[in-house]
Amino acid sequence: MRLTILFFFLAVLFHLSVAQNQEENMIKSFFNEALTDYTSYNNLEYLCKNYPGRITGSEEVSGAIEYVFQIMQEMNLDKVFKQKVQVPRWEMGNGAKAYIKIRDDKIEVSVIPLGLSIGTNKNGLISKVVEVHDFEELEKLGRNKIEGKIVFFNRPMDPTLINTFNAYSGAGNQRTQGAAEAAKYGAAGVVVRSLTTSLDDFPHTGVMRYAENGSQIPAVAISTNGANLLSELLTKEPALDFYFESDCKNFPETTSYNIIGEIKGSEFPEEIITVGGHLDAWEPGEGAHDDGAGCMQSIEVLRIYKKLGVQPKRTVRAVMFMDEEVAQRGGKEYARQAKLNNEKHYFALEADEGAFRPLGFGISAPDERLAKIFALKKYFEPYGITQFTKGGGGVDIDPLGDLGTPISSHVTEMQRYFDMHHSGNDTFEQVNFREFQMGSAAMASFIYLIDKFDL
Amino acid sequence: MRLTILFFFLAVLFHLSVAQNQEENMIKSFFNEALTDYTSYNNLEYLCKNYPGRITGSEEVSGAIEYVFQIMQEMNLDKVFKQKVQVPRWEMGNGAKAYIKIRDDKIEVSVIPLGLSIGTNKNGLISKVVEVHDFEELEKLGRNKIEGKIVFFNRPMDPTLINTFNAYSGAGNQRTQGAAEAAKYGAAGVVVRSLTTSLDDFPHTGVMRYAENGSQIPAVAISTNGANLLSELLTKEPALDFYFESDCKNFPETTSYNIIGEIKGSEFPEEIITVGGHLDAWEPGEGAHDDGAGCMQSIEVLRIYKKLGVQPKRTVRAVMFMDEEVAQRGGKEYARQAKLNNEKHYFALEADEGAFRPLGFGISAPDERLAKIFALKKYFEPYGITQFTKGGGGVDIDPLGDLGTPISSHVTEMQRYFDMHHSGNDTFEQVNFREFQMGSAAMASFIYLIDKFDL
Repeated sequence: MRLTILFFFLAVLFHLSVAQNQEENMIKSFFNEALTDYTSYNNLEYLCKNYPGRITGSEEVSGAIEYVFQIMQEMNLDKVFKQKVQVPRWEMGNGAKAYIKIRDDKIEVSVIPLGLSIGTNKNGLISKVVEVHDFEELEKLGRNKIEGKIVFFNRPMDPTLINTFNAYSGAGNQRTQGAAEAAKYGAAGVVVRSLTTSLDDFPHTGVMRYAENGSQIPAVAISTNGANLLSELLTKEPALDFYFESDCKNFPETTSYNIIGEIKGSEFPEEIITVGGHLDAWEPGEGAHDDGAGCMQSIEVLRIYKKLGVQPKRTVRAVMFMDEEVAQRGGKEYARQAKLNNEKHYFALEADEGAFRPLGFGISAPDERLAKIFALKKYFEPYGITQFTKGGGGVDIDPLGDLGTPISSHVTEMQRYFDMHHSGNDTFEQVNFREFQMGSAAMASFIYLIDKFDL
Repeated sequence: MRLTILFFFLAVLFHLSVAQNQEENMIKSFFNEALTDYTSYNNLEYLCKNYPGRITGSEEVSGAIEYVFQIMQEMNLDKVFKQKVQVPRWEMGNGAKAYIKIRDDKIEVSVIPLGLSIGTNKNGLISKVVEVHDFEELEKLGRNKIEGKIVFFNRPMDPTLINTFNAYSGAGNQRTQGAAEAAKYGAAGVVVRSLTTSLDDFPHTGVMRYAENGSQIPAVAISTNGANLLSELLTKEPALDFYFESDCKNFPETTSYNIIGEIKGSEFPEEIITVGGHLDAWEPGEGAHDDGAGCMQSIEVLRIYKKLGVQPKRTVRAVMFMDEEVAQRGGKEYARQAKLNNEKHYFALEADEGAFRPLGFGISAPDERLAKIFALKKYFEPYGITQFTKGGGGVDIDPLGDLGTPISSHVTEMQRYFDMHHSGNDTFEQVNFREFQMGSAAMASFIYLIDKFDL
């Protein structure tokens, strides 16, 4: 009898160990496949070079939609479809020009319109400058000092923060709300220091929003080198003038699409696991790290499963969300349809932190489920992927999270991210093949294990 | 009495906790300083742009020696000096040219001479090609099949290895010994697949060695794209010809220098901690990641100490070693002088894995000491620096290790390293400021703690 128990115990142990080995081998095969196949990387190059500056609602984004749709159609998936989304349409026009004027000298600096900003009139805008670092400073100065002037928001991202995303968040309200705040005091326009950790001549754009009933004033971002120069000159010549012109414009909303490809689940086809990125991006870059890469990594998860004959139990969807950058309509519509059609969304993962070395996953889920997901870490340690942390998601899947779906983010090493983010520097050449594909393999592994172990 | 013990116990705890806080704060201040000061990064740019291709014994390297000597002289260090080193002198000449010849078609491919190789004669070398992947294959083919031919070593670095340095090591003997092995069977020359994980048109050079009494045949590296093309064409046209020409040359040995700057220790000035990189590099790159960066990071350790008023107990030396790439004479001479002068070398750290995101430190030391050093990990965790592993050092400090000094290596995230290594792609632009300076701060912190805690 005792011997029977011992044998039983050993058999269970053996079974567990074989099972773990099987998963380890599967994950190794995901990494091997990713690190030796260039399909996804080549597709990213094609997307970046043929459809750069994919601003929501633009012509470039229409071409990109057809392109990724075609890629997925040729993959022999179970279903590929588009989901209609109503999106805002804003055009950057010819960009923006600016100079600092001191008496007869004009010193050109690099600027770019902020997304959703109105343009200046044809003659541009020229005015004295008030430099501030936050909204408190603005309030203290008051209408008296600000009216008719250009407000220059010059609070840098904190370079001493190791997590550059936190540094971005810490400086972000200047860009998103700077114009709205400055308009309260009668400012004529705003110039915002680019949200980047690097010192260079690339201006970095991104969305801004006017107050609902506030007046609308033109807003541009200035490169960090330009911002430092302007600030330095202001201390010497406080009465200098700043000139900028832009012809960006808002148009009526237009129709666009989320693009979705899926492998049907073998056991629970009605349960959906979403893995996605967003297809829209900013001019004048190529939207490589942000977020062509996340789209291609999501498609690559499906390609790897097909290639290696992995049949997930649940339906796995690669979703290219539309309009993450401007009004997040794609993510909202995806969740709205999910609710409307009573879909069961089991889990979601978003890749929107750049295709750098994967570090781990941030996860938002109930505590018990979270603990089980954290236990997956052992499978990733051989790949140096060790950061499994509470709290995750992404702009596009957060609405699913609001409906109760556990959501997660692909966490990467973001030291270089803001050198490129929303600027002309976000090009395909900045994406390293190995880092990109380690990310794809990590995502394929994570989704595989979530599905396999019913987490 | 009991209360006294309790108070004593609490006082010790309090003291320990204050002490740990002090160290944590010091390390935070190292990172803050590194991430906000551009001195070292600007110096690296100057070095790369003014003294690229710093091959041992060359004119470029003489200029670089004077440059780093001058930088350290202006830092108000306690001592800056040069240490004479006899080094080999090999010149790459005009590089190398090559084409694949199929009947009347000539298809150009990118090649580069291997370091220490002889050149071809003026008319170049043209011959049939034998493709092999390792020395066993070579031996099986034998003199019959090889004599008079060009041997094409085409074993790729294994892309599925996550540690790219291991992949490099696994393919390295083709470059270092390929010519010597092929010469045994009467080969006319060798063409070696570039040691890189990327598929591109940059050929990657590096040192090779002839057998002591073997015959010397010219050797070049071919880009990975070129190697794939050659291999593909060979399957279709096994009788194709390969042509290459090179005018590289060996010259008599010459005098060069290690450059050394130091801060004298306050308590144990006779005990030396060395932190270094190597100043020599390969043409036609700028020796940015390999290893101008390691040199500048080592100097940056001293700059940070000076700036923050850190007075180490032991003498801390920044050493720019000479000739790591060819004959490792700088490291050997440094250790020889250490022995000759009976110097006490307490610890050494080498930075020669590229200035990527720091991951940790590899350390070679007796087990008891190692365990204490591993315990430093807690100070680095807030910076995502968590890999403290047994086994480390570097080509330049290994001779010190042979004398009994604990040695260590600055371990970085090397996914991108071999895209650049020993090629024209190793330029300043490939070095990211934050990754570079996080490395400097990590090195400053490590050395500081080793010294502080007498590890």
